[in-house]
Amino acid sequence: FLRATSFNFKWSIKCSDFSLKTHNPIRAIVDGMKIEPNQDKPMIALSIGDPTTFGNLPPADQVLDAMKSVISDGSYNGYGPSVGFIEARQAVAEYSQHQGDISASDVILCSGCSCALDLCIAALAGPGQNILIPKPGFSIYATLAEGFGIEVRSYNLIPEKNWEIDLDHLETLIDLKTAAVILTNPSNPCGSVFSKQHILEILQIAERHYVPIIADEIYEHFVFPGNEYYSVSSLSKNVPVLSCGGITKRFLVPGWRTGWIIIHDRHGAFLEVRKAITNLSSRILGSNSLVQGALPAILKNTPQKFYDELVETLQNHANIAYQMLKEIPGLVPIMPSGAMYMMVGIEIDRFPAYNNELDFVQDLVREQSVFCLPGKCFNIDNFMRIVLTVPRDMMVEACNRIREFCEKHYKSDIDTIDEIAM
Amino acid sequence: FLRATSFNFKWSIKCSDFSLKTHNPIRAIVDGMKIEPNQDKPMIALSIGDPTTFGNLPPADQVLDAMKSVISDGSYNGYGPSVGFIEARQAVAEYSQHQGDISASDVILCSGCSCALDLCIAALAGPGQNILIPKPGFSIYATLAEGFGIEVRSYNLIPEKNWEIDLDHLETLIDLKTAAVILTNPSNPCGSVFSKQHILEILQIAERHYVPIIADEIYEHFVFPGNEYYSVSSLSKNVPVLSCGGITKRFLVPGWRTGWIIIHDRHGAFLEVRKAITNLSSRILGSNSLVQGALPAILKNTPQKFYDELVETLQNHANIAYQMLKEIPGLVPIMPSGAMYMMVGIEIDRFPAYNNELDFVQDLVREQSVFCLPGKCFNIDNFMRIVLTVPRDMMVEACNRIREFCEKHYKSDIDTIDEIAM
Ligand SMILES: Cc1ncc(COP(=O)(O)O)c(C=O)c1O
Ligand SMILES: Cc1ncc(COP(=O)(O)O)c(C=O)c1O
Repeated sequence: FLRATSFNFKWSIKCSDFSLKTHNPIRAIVDGMKIEPNQDKPMIALSIGDPTTFGNLPPADQVLDAMKSVISDGSYNGYGPSVGFIEARQAVAEYSQHQGDISASDVILCSGCSCALDLCIAALAGPGQNILIPKPGFSIYATLAEGFGIEVRSYNLIPEKNWEIDLDHLETLIDLKTAAVILTNPSNPCGSVFSKQHILEILQIAERHYVPIIADEIYEHFVFPGNEYYSVSSLSKNVPVLSCGGITKRFLVPGWRTGWIIIHDRHGAFLEVRKAITNLSSRILGSNSLVQGALPAILKNTPQKFYDELVETLQNHANIAYQMLKEIPGLVPIMPSGAMYMMVGIEIDRFPAYNNELDFVQDLVREQSVFCLPGKCFNIDNFMRIVLTVPRDMMVEACNRIREFCEKHYKSDIDTIDEIAM
Repeated sequence: FLRATSFNFKWSIKCSDFSLKTHNPIRAIVDGMKIEPNQDKPMIALSIGDPTTFGNLPPADQVLDAMKSVISDGSYNGYGPSVGFIEARQAVAEYSQHQGDISASDVILCSGCSCALDLCIAALAGPGQNILIPKPGFSIYATLAEGFGIEVRSYNLIPEKNWEIDLDHLETLIDLKTAAVILTNPSNPCGSVFSKQHILEILQIAERHYVPIIADEIYEHFVFPGNEYYSVSSLSKNVPVLSCGGITKRFLVPGWRTGWIIIHDRHGAFLEVRKAITNLSSRILGSNSLVQGALPAILKNTPQKFYDELVETLQNHANIAYQMLKEIPGLVPIMPSGAMYMMVGIEIDRFPAYNNELDFVQDLVREQSVFCLPGKCFNIDNFMRIVLTVPRDMMVEACNRIREFCEKHYKSDIDTIDEIAM
């Protein structure tokens, strides 16, 4: 190098586009809201997608025991391979046989499902390309993609059809720059679970356009009795799928940051992708080794009863909330089939005091100290999302307060006004 | 959107430039080597920068107890803020007061120091810009930068001056596109520790050119008695510094993946950077919550004795290896002042059987089952790096085998031949 002369005469440190374009829209929306609870009522946060918040849903003893014995044993303090220890990957492969015939080498361990999604998106897409994401949907897909200059295009889910994808809309969004379709099943924020038939139809579109799928299956098995869960990969021999999962939700340990990618290659389509993901995993040298050491025991020893009771609790809470909310004027709850959430439609015209659901939920906090996430956080208007993991009594209390709030602000004569105005 | 027609007639899934340009050069070099140990001698890996490999350096009991009680307590299973729990950030701030007057809000917790470096590099630099890294140096800087299209420029360290930076060379590399200088102090692979005076000189250059510093201080406090460690940030009131650290090395738990960034702003130069790093932390939603929960106890309760004994052991091993290796014909070990490594120069011309140090270390494995990392892994020729964390007897045995190897292959008359050839 030749000696260069610097003309930087002062400290003006600019940041990368990557960092400036990476942001968490939920944070931005919530930080922009006035969230001031009513001093006379204790706050009930129906907003937090963290099942551990209220202490009513502890992890299984087997899971805690597995961690403690790994710590005592002392054999998992060191670096593992950046894709994960082989024993842990093997355990995930066995745990995930319902997804198809996979082996340890198809599993990449990550620091949470978020990190899994990060690697998948970063491997498959680059600037100028696009990925398709659900609307309403989880905001992290945009957080992860936009820094890279990847366009996110939102396909509609149809509330009246239990949040199935508007397939025609989905297909119109695909072009030659489409690097992947992201599916969230079961869904956050909708709590919907796709039928086998619906997944087959989605797969047909992917196959027709040769677009791979990133399946966010972090809520797999979170399905209320009477519904059935199908992993995307289990239903196609031709469409390559990256399935992202982890222990965050089902094992009630989101802070442990342990997730995975399962590479479902088809006819070698993912040959390069596999290498790309492995490359990317070398950036942060793998996920927490203690959890990896405990993973075989966590996945094998957790009793079926634990899973069943968790799902039962969630379904109970869903039933309670649904029954209560559907009687409330101006609200249209949509009964979920799984996951930990319910979307509640707000007939905003019936609440003339509020311009939109943001104002609505803000005032609900102010008057009733109940906080629900506004639909805007998931890119949809006139809905709010409630979480089903709060204790039962709290759920009932929250619904009662929501009723009081709605009854106060609901205007039934708005139709007439509207008609007159027309 | 209009309906788009897809002309993708087959599955041809290309990966992003980002993923293809991200790679771990050490892996590539080591995978390309023929590493076939001598069946008659047990393998001694002097190559692995993981202090837990041999079981001789367990973490402090206080650290393990802290983890176990967090697990029993059950209060750290949930999501934390993506920059880390405030208690953990506060504990790091207190632990790091030697770096300057910092508070919890200056600390961002990350999944290991690698992740800390990732966020710093990704925040400060983008395509077309450059960062300056040490040569020889730790390969992860290039791994992290190149995916983003950031150019890495290597400044020379001078082995004869205890691996001080060639400051003239450093300065010639700086131009308007220079986003940051990365300093590794103490150094991997050199084991060198910069003097106060030297750091002040480096800071002068940074100040003259208005270039911020990323200080990789993961080996801070790993300094042999007789030397003194100065954090970069403690020596300047004007140069903004991002210090990257963690518990990986000093607490002997690399697999736990817990590190941090400490933002040392100066006159608001890092206002935007702070926001950028916070944005980036939202990609993977923070580091392992259990370790975060235990962090205050880990940082406060680990006895000084533990630290002292660790450094003493490393210094002992350094002394042993240095004394033994410096007597070996053709080798020029450079005594380290800290960290966990020693660089050993190879007078490659004295070993005519080998073209370069790669061939040399490869044959050392084949004949003596001793594996040292070739200098190429750190971007320098004719050196090899040995780790000092192996058990003492193993260190002695390894040095004896290296002597046997060198004595066999050393040609003292090579000078004469060279002279004749000239
Ligand atoms: C649909 C969906 N995907 C991914 C995640 C992130 O999971 P993790 O905490 O394992 O990163 C969440 C968390 O809420 C989620 O709802
Ligand atoms: C100089 C240097 N920086 C950073 C790291 C990475 O540390 P961590 O394991 O905390 O990511 C290492 C690990 O060897 C290192 O030597």
